[in-house]
Amino acid sequence: YAAGDPLWGYFSAIAGQDGEIDAEELQRCLTQAGIHGTYTPFSLETCRIMIALLDIDHTGKMGFNEFKELWGALSAWKQHFCTFDQDRSGTVEPHEFSQALMAMGYRINHQTLSALIKRYSKNGRIYFDDYVACAVKLRALTDVFRRRDSMQQGFVNFMYDDFLQCTISI
Amino acid sequence: YAAGDPLWGYFSAIAGQDGEIDAEELQRCLTQAGIHGTYTPFSLETCRIMIALLDIDHTGKMGFNEFKELWGALSAWKQHFCTFDQDRSGTVEPHEFSQALMAMGYRINHQTLSALIKRYSKNGRIYFDDYVACAVKLRALTDVFRRRDSMQQGFVNFMYDDFLQCTISI
Ligand SMILES: [Ca+2]
Ligand SMILES: [Ca+2]
Ligand SMILES: [Ca+2]
Repeated sequence: YAAGDPLWGYFSAIAGQDGEIDAEELQRCLTQAGIHGTYTPFSLETCRIMIALLDIDHTGKMGFNEFKELWGALSAWKQHFCTFDQDRSGTVEPHEFSQALMAMGYRINHQTLSALIKRYSKNGRIYFDDYVACAVKLRALTDVFRRRDSMQQGFVNFMYDDFLQCTISI
Repeated sequence: YAAGDPLWGYFSAIAGQDGEIDAEELQRCLTQAGIHGTYTPFSLETCRIMIALLDIDHTGKMGFNEFKELWGALSAWKQHFCTFDQDRSGTVEPHEFSQALMAMGYRINHQTLSALIKRYSKNGRIYFDDYVACAVKLRALTDVFRRRDSMQQGFVNFMYDDFLQCTISI
């Protein structure tokens, strides 16, 4: 059904019979398709996060439609990252990271930014791989929040079980 | 300072100079100390979750005190698991998993249980490794919830930034 779609070639060659890929296959798929460009290919850990967050049916695997959705998001995130990594070192500084998150449409306060930087930086810099892991997680958590905050009041209410159900897979 | 503590031997041999261990070192440490007993040793993924959740200072590493705390929790979880894995197959059934969570003091509803089982089972069974990954995460999320629910009203309120800060590292 995806004939003519250039991504389908990479995907189908690796997915095989069942038409789904796990984290290691996703890593191969993304590396071969070269989405990282001149950056270091994605770590297995980041690929695991990508699968976990898009894996609505909890099979631990990803189908072609989910893969395409991921690909679109990755392309946009890479674009943002490149804009801020002007010296092409493969890393951005914490203050560039903040700007990148703004550019992605996030409005988060200074304290949250500090928490994100602490969590996703290594030796004071943020690598592309960690940047994407952060972007994936941020998007998933923001989706959960927005879905709960249907009146857009800026806060959500969780009963204990609710809270677990919403966050356990993220 | 930990002379005479049998765990110190395993820990210090692997931690080396800086006195801290990362996920791969934790995996070696736990495997050599044999906490898994007759079960399959912990996967790197589960070791990463353990580090992330106990890593208060966000160094990606774990010191001896945190390691000891983890060890205590693991011993208790293994005890519970063994109680329910009566045929020593290394797996428990979903209904035994529910009972084990109850035995650990969790009071969660049927829907949450289903979500946990979907997330942590493989072919309808829960392996020791996934059971522990679930226990680690459940404890971290429950800690977050309880800390926010200081009046013990059974629900918590999150502003968006709050929510991110509380869940981003879990
Ligand atoms: Ca799936
Ligand atoms: Ca740079
Ligand atoms: Ca069994």
